[in-house]
Amino acid sequence: MKKEILILNGPNLNLLGKREPDIYGSTTFEEYYASLEKKYPEVTFRYFQSNSEGALVDKIHEVGFEIDGIVMNAGAYTHTSIAIADAISAVKSPVVEVHISNVAKRETFRHISYMAKSCVGSIIGLGLKGYELAVEYLIEL
Amino acid sequence: MKKEILILNGPNLNLLGKREPDIYGSTTFEEYYASLEKKYPEVTFRYFQSNSEGALVDKIHEVGFEIDGIVMNAGAYTHTSIAIADAISAVKSPVVEVHISNVAKRETFRHISYMAKSCVGSIIGLGLKGYELAVEYLIEL
Amino acid sequence: MKKEILILNGPNLNLLGKREPDIYGSTTFEEYYASLEKKYPEVTFRYFQSNSEGALVDKIHEVGFEIDGIVMNAGAYTHTSIAIADAISAVKSPVVEVHISNVAKRETFRHISYMAKSCVGSIIGLGLKGYELAVEYLIEL
Amino acid sequence: MKKEILILNGPNLNLLGKREPDIYGSTTFEEYYASLEKKYPEVTFRYFQSNSEGALVDKIHEVGFEIDGIVMNAGAYTHTSIAIADAISAVKSPVVEVHISNVAKRETFRHISYMAKSCVGSIIGLGLKGYELAVEYLIEL
Amino acid sequence: MKKEILILNGPNLNLLGKREPDIYGSTTFEEYYASLEKKYPEVTFRYFQSNSEGALVDKIHEVGFEIDGIVMNAGAYTHTSIAIADAISAVKSPVVEVHISNVAKRETFRHISYMAKSCVGSIIGLGLKGYELAVEYLIEL
Amino acid sequence: MKKEILILNGPNLNLLGKREPDIYGSTTFEEYYASLEKKYPEVTFRYFQSNSEGALVDKIHEVGFEIDGIVMNAGAYTHTSIAIADAISAVKSPVVEVHISNVAKRETFRHISYMAKSCVGSIIGLGLKGYELAVEYLIEL
Amino acid sequence: MKKEILILNGPNLNLLGKREPDIYGSTTFEEYYASLEKKYPEVTFRYFQSNSEGALVDKIHEVGFEIDGIVMNAGAYTHTSIAIADAISAVKSPVVEVHISNVAKRETFRHISYMAKSCVGSIIGLGLKGYELAVEYLIEL
Amino acid sequence: MKKEILILNGPNLNLLGKREPDIYGSTTFEEYYASLEKKYPEVTFRYFQSNSEGALVDKIHEVGFEIDGIVMNAGAYTHTSIAIADAISAVKSPVVEVHISNVAKRETFRHISYMAKSCVGSIIGLGLKGYELAVEYLIEL
Amino acid sequence: MKKEILILNGPNLNLLGKREPDIYGSTTFEEYYASLEKKYPEVTFRYFQSNSEGALVDKIHEVGFEIDGIVMNAGAYTHTSIAIADAISAVKSPVVEVHISNVAKRETFRHISYMAKSCVGSIIGLGLKGYELAVEYLIEL
Amino acid sequence: MKKEILILNGPNLNLLGKREPDIYGSTTFEEYYASLEKKYPEVTFRYFQSNSEGALVDKIHEVGFEIDGIVMNAGAYTHTSIAIADAISAVKSPVVEVHISNVAKRETFRHISYMAKSCVGSIIGLGLKGYELAVEYLIEL
Amino acid sequence: MKKEILILNGPNLNLLGKREPDIYGSTTFEEYYASLEKKYPEVTFRYFQSNSEGALVDKIHEVGFEIDGIVMNAGAYTHTSIAIADAISAVKSPVVEVHISNVAKRETFRHISYMAKSCVGSIIGLGLKGYELAVEYLIEL
Amino acid sequence: MKKEILILNGPNLNLLGKREPDIYGSTTFEEYYASLEKKYPEVTFRYFQSNSEGALVDKIHEVGFEIDGIVMNAGAYTHTSIAIADAISAVKSPVVEVHISNVAKRETFRHISYMAKSCVGSIIGLGLKGYELAVEYLIEL
Repeated sequence: MKKEILILNGPNLNLLGKREPDIYGSTTFEEYYASLEKKYPEVTFRYFQSNSEGALVDKIHEVGFEIDGIVMNAGAYTHTSIAIADAISAVKSPVVEVHISNVAKRETFRHISYMAKSCVGSIIGLGLKGYELAVEYLIEL
Repeated sequence: MKKEILILNGPNLNLLGKREPDIYGSTTFEEYYASLEKKYPEVTFRYFQSNSEGALVDKIHEVGFEIDGIVMNAGAYTHTSIAIADAISAVKSPVVEVHISNVAKRETFRHISYMAKSCVGSIIGLGLKGYELAVEYLIEL
Repeated sequence: MKKEILILNGPNLNLLGKREPDIYGSTTFEEYYASLEKKYPEVTFRYFQSNSEGALVDKIHEVGFEIDGIVMNAGAYTHTSIAIADAISAVKSPVVEVHISNVAKRETFRHISYMAKSCVGSIIGLGLKGYELAVEYLIEL
Repeated sequence: MKKEILILNGPNLNLLGKREPDIYGSTTFEEYYASLEKKYPEVTFRYFQSNSEGALVDKIHEVGFEIDGIVMNAGAYTHTSIAIADAISAVKSPVVEVHISNVAKRETFRHISYMAKSCVGSIIGLGLKGYELAVEYLIEL
Repeated sequence: MKKEILILNGPNLNLLGKREPDIYGSTTFEEYYASLEKKYPEVTFRYFQSNSEGALVDKIHEVGFEIDGIVMNAGAYTHTSIAIADAISAVKSPVVEVHISNVAKRETFRHISYMAKSCVGSIIGLGLKGYELAVEYLIEL
Repeated sequence: MKKEILILNGPNLNLLGKREPDIYGSTTFEEYYASLEKKYPEVTFRYFQSNSEGALVDKIHEVGFEIDGIVMNAGAYTHTSIAIADAISAVKSPVVEVHISNVAKRETFRHISYMAKSCVGSIIGLGLKGYELAVEYLIEL
Repeated sequence: MKKEILILNGPNLNLLGKREPDIYGSTTFEEYYASLEKKYPEVTFRYFQSNSEGALVDKIHEVGFEIDGIVMNAGAYTHTSIAIADAISAVKSPVVEVHISNVAKRETFRHISYMAKSCVGSIIGLGLKGYELAVEYLIEL
Repeated sequence: MKKEILILNGPNLNLLGKREPDIYGSTTFEEYYASLEKKYPEVTFRYFQSNSEGALVDKIHEVGFEIDGIVMNAGAYTHTSIAIADAISAVKSPVVEVHISNVAKRETFRHISYMAKSCVGSIIGLGLKGYELAVEYLIEL
Repeated sequence: MKKEILILNGPNLNLLGKREPDIYGSTTFEEYYASLEKKYPEVTFRYFQSNSEGALVDKIHEVGFEIDGIVMNAGAYTHTSIAIADAISAVKSPVVEVHISNVAKRETFRHISYMAKSCVGSIIGLGLKGYELAVEYLIEL
Repeated sequence: MKKEILILNGPNLNLLGKREPDIYGSTTFEEYYASLEKKYPEVTFRYFQSNSEGALVDKIHEVGFEIDGIVMNAGAYTHTSIAIADAISAVKSPVVEVHISNVAKRETFRHISYMAKSCVGSIIGLGLKGYELAVEYLIEL
Repeated sequence: MKKEILILNGPNLNLLGKREPDIYGSTTFEEYYASLEKKYPEVTFRYFQSNSEGALVDKIHEVGFEIDGIVMNAGAYTHTSIAIADAISAVKSPVVEVHISNVAKRETFRHISYMAKSCVGSIIGLGLKGYELAVEYLIEL
Repeated sequence: MKKEILILNGPNLNLLGKREPDIYGSTTFEEYYASLEKKYPEVTFRYFQSNSEGALVDKIHEVGFEIDGIVMNAGAYTHTSIAIADAISAVKSPVVEVHISNVAKRETFRHISYMAKSCVGSIIGLGLKGYELAVEYLIEL
């Protein structure tokens, strides 16, 4: 039976490819997502992006008691949302935190992650490749 | 004339009874809410839960100039939302803050409440019973 | 059999009704205590007030292995006494922390409570009514 | 050709004129907005207010690659939202931050602005007049 | 009619003359107190020293609604007792804080005074002479 | 009758046009000041610049009980001078704080303004244009 | 001639054997004290326990100019009492600080000791055995 | 032979009687100074006020090796000037620090005094009377 | 041509499989390393472990100008060694930081990584699997 | 069977007797060690001193799964080495921390011990005698 | 052509030789300056000392666009003046910071230097010799 | 008789000329050291570099009781090693701290020096020239 994995993106990640390309590269997430589906045919992917904290919490509630894993890039909410962190702690599915850029090289307020403690683990600074590595981890789990 | 009171719940409280039962117990909020309506027939209750900060602010604006009181458990937004605190300060209805668990026994970031200063007062750590005590306070006001 | 509850007041609460009435109201605690006894005939109340940290610890030791509950307003010791907090942790009776005023609206040093972590829970800012709510909680326990 | 400017208001600013008039005055924002359109006929104004952080981010994405400027009062999100700050950094249109009251005279948590670094500049404490000054700055740019 | 002034000394001040004479000098407080009574015949002095925080609170309550002034050296409680500070705020008599040594030259934890805010003012580092100056201030008030 | 406004510049602003042109631009303040006088013929301007904290305090005392407004850029003293802030609080004329660069983008020690609390409001990061906006605000007051 | 040593216990240590036995063991201090007297017949022991900060200060004053040493476990006052620390500094007898549990493994507020600086040294986390080791140190001094 | 004492006032104290009279009273310092000269005929007074930190340092150097004492109210420089504190440490004359208002009741940045450590002692919050008490202390020295 | 990758382990990682198995599992690193070599035949692996900060710096210097990548788990030095971080910044080979356990769930002093800023990125909390993911990232680079 | 105990000394302790004798006394550790062996014939002692953090970790690994106890004075590494603390946590032998001087009387950075939490307990400020007391504790264990 | 170097001294350095000779030695700066001129005949020296922050800024502006180097000891302003630091950044001439005493051995507030970042480098604690070494550095530049 | 001076370099300084040449220049330390020997024929130099904290401590012990001076650049250990600082305090030879780059312009964690307090003084940011100036200082001592 195929594993099911949700790719969950937070605020401003819909701008990927347009926004600050020196930090985030010029591939749009849609293009990347297509390649991800192709590379892992043994996985059924779902995708959700929202700029709203509440919508991200809702989505985690919706899928988090049945799906095999969540690869989440909570964007800026990483550093401010206890609600999303609580949602992750509350559900059953394992969540892997991904950050495209190396947040340790950026502003100090980006060094704090409320997510980290509630997730299984984190992959940081390895570009879009980080999503793939997280998927591989969840496949093998 | 019957008093009108809003029970206002923030993020993840819709999972009550499913989520971390060792902290929050195994009653769902719907079950509890029914018993509340039954116990205080002299009160007209309304109920609203949302995982979205903005929706909670909207609801406070909507009812806060006419209702007799709000019993609010802002969940994780307690520790991060100045917007909700400002909404409470802006309206006329008295708000009593309730927390089911004893937040003082949990992570340090849960020790800070932006809500407390804007509310009449707080009831913390007394389980679901806290909602009833808050209702009694508002009835007598 | 009647439940037994200790009302335990810390420093300066003997001045209630005389001291800063705009913060604490003008009822003396004696008057209030009489009304409390009347309102809950199913409870045997005891009352103790002291300005001395050591005397409060002694009292908690004395009753804390047999009484059904303690409603404690530790006054200024709330923010400075680890000894009282330790006494509460050491005994068996459940303790509910009460504060008459909303301490979140006052000086920052009043935002810290050493008590909170050792108590079952806290009721803050609901005036003398807070003592009643605490009693109701203990009755039902 | 007429310049196009978005007036973007954050949480609780829909209560202007009703809420804490000693701090914010008694003019509603709708009244003020009408006078603004009249005073600057050379500008096409758009107006958006939301209590939701995500909706503000969405709006910035929607207009921020084509409009000539944004005058933004992020309200309470000023002090907590990295997501809005990131949205401003990600788009092309210049944003001027406005605060009606002098936040330096209020609570310490209002002294921090996540917005300031991403905006062109800030106008603080000059009342509703601040919006006009920001518009004038954007006209001349 | 003669003014009445209480000289109120906190912990360890009973050792004056014996304890760390390089900091506090070698006159005992009893000797000094006798000279004080002699120097200001127009004042009726009372004297109270205790090593107990609660006893100091009790004494302030006892005299603080009728006496013309209190000259208080709270010793180490200066830096740790909110209870004494609250007692001073609660009573009517003006209190002048005195420290024999210049606390600014000593450990950092002695730089904080909970007393200062509740007292009329403070005289620090002028030796036993500080008591006299405080008395003169209270006489003239 | 013409309004009278003082333009008050603090340390190093006499170097404007010479110093770090990538931050402050290449117009000298003298050139800018001439254009300001021309643009607002309904105002009588005065101008004062000093590198000395004391001289700035003296000037505020001298004009601050009679002039219609002060547009002040305190330069580096913004972050270190309580004396200037006290002078502003002490006089009657309204003071608007201006900063040419967006201080939120620079070193952390420039994020603190002792001035802000004593001024009516602040205009930050809008270049020399900030002086004009401040003047317009004072004209309309 | 026999050496004289005071065993001085602070708040809640009278509960030893009853309170949190997983941290403090189940021997009462009275039992332990008897064994101590037996083990060191060359020492005249005195014993004093109080829950009151002032009483502990009084006792230190009373014996501290003549006794050969004090073994003190100030309990919770370790972390809050400058008055006891000052008393130790003021007297002549050497004081050895003892803690039964390893405070470094407990809450952060227990990591600070006001006592340490005034004492000769400290023995921490070695259980009741710590008292014996302190006695041996004082015998050999 | 008459003692010589300098009264040294820092920034904004020339406004005394005009500035914030609810904090500082309505007597001008000139009037007060005249009364001071009259009250202590056994002292030759000198007086110096400046809003400039450097001028205050210069004056302390000028008189500080020969005069019998300095009564200094450094105003806002109290909280920011290490240069003045160093000047006091460098000279021979004893300096008594005076503050008219009770700085402990004002903003936190006024709670820090760089002066205190270099002065003999401080008199705070006793109004203009503080200058007299300081003079009396210096006379008796 | 085969890529060459160094697996570099810091202090205490030689105990893997023996030490705190509930945190680190019971596989020894030697066993794991063998499986790693087998899984990626297209890579020439080298392995180095040391408990000495200096030896780790030496090794980074030795290989860091020629090898294709380093997978480093600096263990406890992650949180204390600027020397290792500097060595990484100084060499040419890309370094990926790996942590077996989720450090965000452990003591606060483990939340700080001096390494992160000098590395390409980090993989945290994904167990020994993290080494593989890092290798895959380096293979694809 | 004889117990085996390792005396483990960290950096600079090889200089004992030469270095800062007013703090550490003038006995060399070799002399002291000889007396230790003589005093406790029932113990087989081992001794190891190193100035290298890594060598100390190595030694703890080497003996820590078989020896009966370690008396460790980690010297300056006490305050900076998480690696040594982790090594102690990883092994089975109980470790008692010893400091010759009373670190609480020295620089603030010496008040922090990374060791304390991983050790059984600590003996501080009792001179070389501290090693003996630690040995006695381990013998009795 | 001879190089031109300004020796720039800040507050209280005019007292050198009189003030705290145990810290600063007993040579006056005039004596030392004469020896400096003699030792480096290939340099044209200028000398300026002021106790006024503003005068130091003025002098840096005056010479800083033409002179070959400045050796500056800003005294107490080192720790408080952003204005002087900004002046150094604004001019062209290289500035070397000198401190006679080892500030790291003195009060914590002397450990912070606003100057350091704007200067080429610093020479600290090498006595008056520091000025010579700075001159040599500037000669060779 | 010739003076003997040790040049002591810490971690990563062996990479000088290869590592981050924009910060540290492109001369190797070997080349520079040769020029140093040539320039000061009146000095017998020794040279030691290590990436190991313990080896640096060992070397300081070895030479520090007989050599005429040490010029030390502790590299990254400057900010983390109390052990090296203690070694310097323990030996007799004077140590001058040198940093090639201006650490005040780099990351905040490089602003702290444990070394400074134990050394005679420091020369910072003057490039390799700093070693020469330190040598000159030691020659003249």
